[in-house]
Amino acid sequence: MICRIALDAMGGDLGPSVNIEGAIQAARETGHEIILVGDQSVLERELKKHDIGSLPITIHHAPTVIGMDEKPVEGCRAKQDSTIMIGAQMVSDKKADALVSAGNSGATMTAALWHMRRIPGVSRPAIATTMPTLTSYCLLLDAGANVECKPKHLYQFALMGNIYAETVMNVDKPRVGILTIGEEEGKGNELTVAASELMRTGEFNFIGNVEGRDIPKGTVDVVVCDGFVGNIVLKFAEGLAEALLTLIKRSIKKHPLAVIGGLLMKGAFRDIKKKVDYAEYGGAPLLGVNGVAIISHGGSNAKAIKNAIRLAGDFVTKGTNRKIHEKLNQHRLAEPNSKGT
Amino acid sequence: MICRIALDAMGGDLGPSVNIEGAIQAARETGHEIILVGDQSVLERELKKHDIGSLPITIHHAPTVIGMDEKPVEGCRAKQDSTIMIGAQMVSDKKADALVSAGNSGATMTAALWHMRRIPGVSRPAIATTMPTLTSYCLLLDAGANVECKPKHLYQFALMGNIYAETVMNVDKPRVGILTIGEEEGKGNELTVAASELMRTGEFNFIGNVEGRDIPKGTVDVVVCDGFVGNIVLKFAEGLAEALLTLIKRSIKKHPLAVIGGLLMKGAFRDIKKKVDYAEYGGAPLLGVNGVAIISHGGSNAKAIKNAIRLAGDFVTKGTNRKIHEKLNQHRLAEPNSKGT
Repeated sequence: MICRIALDAMGGDLGPSVNIEGAIQAARETGHEIILVGDQSVLERELKKHDIGSLPITIHHAPTVIGMDEKPVEGCRAKQDSTIMIGAQMVSDKKADALVSAGNSGATMTAALWHMRRIPGVSRPAIATTMPTLTSYCLLLDAGANVECKPKHLYQFALMGNIYAETVMNVDKPRVGILTIGEEEGKGNELTVAASELMRTGEFNFIGNVEGRDIPKGTVDVVVCDGFVGNIVLKFAEGLAEALLTLIKRSIKKHPLAVIGGLLMKGAFRDIKKKVDYAEYGGAPLLGVNGVAIISHGGSNAKAIKNAIRLAGDFVTKGTNRKIHEKLNQHRLAEPNSKGT
Repeated sequence: MICRIALDAMGGDLGPSVNIEGAIQAARETGHEIILVGDQSVLERELKKHDIGSLPITIHHAPTVIGMDEKPVEGCRAKQDSTIMIGAQMVSDKKADALVSAGNSGATMTAALWHMRRIPGVSRPAIATTMPTLTSYCLLLDAGANVECKPKHLYQFALMGNIYAETVMNVDKPRVGILTIGEEEGKGNELTVAASELMRTGEFNFIGNVEGRDIPKGTVDVVVCDGFVGNIVLKFAEGLAEALLTLIKRSIKKHPLAVIGGLLMKGAFRDIKKKVDYAEYGGAPLLGVNGVAIISHGGSNAKAIKNAIRLAGDFVTKGTNRKIHEKLNQHRLAEPNSKGT
């Protein structure tokens, strides 16, 4: 199925050229239609540098950009004609099937909520991030959308994460766990103890409490936590990976033989880099909004953009949101008024 | 200054032999007196395998052991004659200056609180763990003693961590930060926003909000958080380090040249391992109890035990607890009744 993906072509630290390269690669490899949202003249000039032939790439003009450091809500309110706001509106107007942005991630979330609104029954949409593990990948949510959560919110994250892992990540009966301290039942803080009890009633494969170490080990497929904890873990993981790389480089420099060793290990290092490189999985979906929005890393390269577009297409094609809607509304925990509790 | 260190000689996954080896190394290198607490006959038999000459190592009989999986409070209550409870009591009876245990960490904390009690003014003692960074080490507290915290508790963690970093870790004007999401003032959850405001009034070098990535980067010396978040970060870090090592080994096996490369890189890897090896810093001090208790990793080898004993000696010698007592009680936030708020 061919999808129409609105790409925030001005987003990210590396600017339009990288977005356009990613779009071209994606159009070639996936067949999806890409709508570049951004300054028409800038994008036309950039596009001319490439031979795009008959690739399904078009431009949709958006005169302003919400900067990486702008406050999300204020930015969205003041710049209704920004790439992110227009891209999100295109999805709600059915002019696009999904939005991909490597720009201001808070603004992408705000714009998605603003225009696409929530799937009926969802209290709080969550950012779902993919973390590499020893065996495969683990979906962690919420990674920062909701600082304070109630047990019911965590329950809904589990339900949405489970469906996403099944449909988009092709995991059979995902193992769903709640991130806490101590693996025994009854351990944790007030929030996780109550949420854990709720989850035992859920129609998914709930494996109970998991600890921080279970994520890299690969013993759990979907890990649920509040956005405060999730964001700290995510940032810590990014920092640790960077620090280890720096440490390895430094140590190699100090040991003359290690330089040769490092060269001989290039293939092995490439494998590892591929495993931990976020460009491989493109971006973090926002789960629970009535549409598809993928939040890509600010430092995304062309490959990351390409993979984010591919991911957005999969998300649309697999009918993930329809399934979330169905599950939530057949279940007593759905919330018809969507006001949260 | 020579200290008397009570060592839980039966503690840890590796049993008495490792504890005794560590004790012997410590006695040789530090001159501290080591009191092996545990089953007399077992320890005598183990000691006979070594030529300890005139090293200041003695045995103090304790007939029972609190198992690694026993519930801490129940274990301490039922086994008052266990290595951990007797060791803690020796400190409170001034028969030892510090307790070191690689056994049940919850029980060590419980026993320390039980017998040594809190430093007057301290609401909640905290486990302070040392994490390697790109530049040096970072002290993270609380690493799991207090699941639910109030702003004032975090404030006291900062105050205690600051003094510990100055005195034991020899850091000049430690940079103290609060672990949260978003570096701007006012970002975070209710707890961290309120705690951050309190900390601005503190007599230490408070640098404000820090994110997960700041820990491995080495831009902060003392990081404060509640024990729920701290324990998740700690366990995640341990899991990630293990997973990366496994990943490197696996990748090397798949690439024939990398095997030779790995051999040539041995020196470099040794540097890195030394940096991230918890055996190097021995254990986590429990800050806020009126005595010295060091919680060592369950998997501690002899080197870890040796370094934990050295650390315990430093903690005693530097008068860290006296300074914590003074600072807390000259400050309006001290709590004369020690009941916590």
